[in-house]
Amino acid sequence: MRLSETTRAAVETESGWILLPYGDVGDLLNTPNWRSAVNSALSASTEAPVADTDARFASVIATPRKVICCGLNYSDHILEMGRSLPTHPTLFAKYSDTLTGSTDPISAAGSRAVDWEAELAVVVGSELSEAGTEEAASAIAGYCVANDVSMRDWQNRTLQWFQGKNFTASTPLGPWLTTADEFDDDPTFVVEGWINDEQVQRGETASLVFSPVELLEYVSTFTTLRPGDVILTGTPGGVGQGMDPPRFAISGDVIRTHIEGLGTLINPVTV
Amino acid sequence: MRLSETTRAAVETESGWILLPYGDVGDLLNTPNWRSAVNSALSASTEAPVADTDARFASVIATPRKVICCGLNYSDHILEMGRSLPTHPTLFAKYSDTLTGSTDPISAAGSRAVDWEAELAVVVGSELSEAGTEEAASAIAGYCVANDVSMRDWQNRTLQWFQGKNFTASTPLGPWLTTADEFDDDPTFVVEGWINDEQVQRGETASLVFSPVELLEYVSTFTTLRPGDVILTGTPGGVGQGMDPPRFAISGDVIRTHIEGLGTLINPVTV
Repeated sequence: MRLSETTRAAVETESGWILLPYGDVGDLLNTPNWRSAVNSALSASTEAPVADTDARFASVIATPRKVICCGLNYSDHILEMGRSLPTHPTLFAKYSDTLTGSTDPISAAGSRAVDWEAELAVVVGSELSEAGTEEAASAIAGYCVANDVSMRDWQNRTLQWFQGKNFTASTPLGPWLTTADEFDDDPTFVVEGWINDEQVQRGETASLVFSPVELLEYVSTFTTLRPGDVILTGTPGGVGQGMDPPRFAISGDVIRTHIEGLGTLINPVTV
Repeated sequence: MRLSETTRAAVETESGWILLPYGDVGDLLNTPNWRSAVNSALSASTEAPVADTDARFASVIATPRKVICCGLNYSDHILEMGRSLPTHPTLFAKYSDTLTGSTDPISAAGSRAVDWEAELAVVVGSELSEAGTEEAASAIAGYCVANDVSMRDWQNRTLQWFQGKNFTASTPLGPWLTTADEFDDDPTFVVEGWINDEQVQRGETASLVFSPVELLEYVSTFTTLRPGDVILTGTPGGVGQGMDPPRFAISGDVIRTHIEGLGTLINPVTV
């Protein structure tokens, strides 16, 4: 949560958001036994709660060491991009400078092809290397909403998508982390995206080619996942590039991303 | 430099390596006025210097926020990979967990196609956003040697190279940082690579399609570069995948990477 000159992790309670003694949720997740640390901090808190109406949310995790994205993971989006179903996940990287808050404006001066990609984000809660299925499942700290806003002109300049996926402050991540214990094991979500009042995306994570747990397992075979790392699980059909003719966001458009049970991102666009 | 349980930045002097009060060179570069901070720390140092023979080098920068790599940047390598000369740099990302020290073994269990890519690395010394040429040039803290060791089987599983470029501790970076003031403006280097005693790569950075300064300028148009960030400038011809038939490193091979004036990396391979 953003305060005047800093950020703090906070927990939603019936009386408002209680501030925790951690700079952000990433700091909290890097604390040993973070679940009990939250409870201890809540008991010890003497600060006044922040009312919902005063809450301003930064990127849920401010500086994850890794933000690993999976492309081409919903069968309908794969088909609209003109590709065939994959045997391995298509992975690419973002840096923490790419993340932004749930209501922040997205500025993409320099691009004329700003596209939207509503996504489920999975946040890692413990170190993971060469993990099996159960270990990967229990390493999920929780879930939030992301929009992997993509500058298609930059993305398609070369074979590698990196530069179209890494504009400063272009990927809203939030609005908050809903911890995994709020759900059954292996929950499914409906991921939805709007441009202004027009719904353009809707996908069910049950149709993911690679589930969150499978992605964590796969990534952990070649690199170590750490607390606060983020996995973006891919976007369903309905992106602008897939439309005929292609359609992109223009200044004044508002990109809205919603996952029932996780919250909504509302980001105005300036290009 | 590695000590028994930690790392420290250190400066080479005539009497040996003087330890500085910074965890690594990245910490140092994130100190305001780092050049004068080095001089102050040297004057204040009371610790015994470390002899050359006792020095053990970790990755020069331990946890850069960004390690941005340029592919297809030497015309001879571009042609051996069967591609045409680019109008924009092909960029992709590594994470800090991918870096390792100048004499560390590289373990790539899980890959049967471990390839070598000798590269000049440029280390950023000041924050850079939408930089002009002069600002980009003066933001270069210095240069070191890298080998962007690539697991071609993983790299080619999907359209995005990420997973073949991000195996844990697979990219040696070092052995040390040679600061830019040791060279003329816009220096050129000869980048060379050996497998065991056989030289397989040799390229002159004068033939880079995108120079270090041009890469910093370009990247700074869409994201912010920060002190300690690293740019890998691409590899010249002579990689194993370009050979007929393709040739890859096997257990027991030693990959050696040398740039005159910057030092040598010597990394045994285990697959």
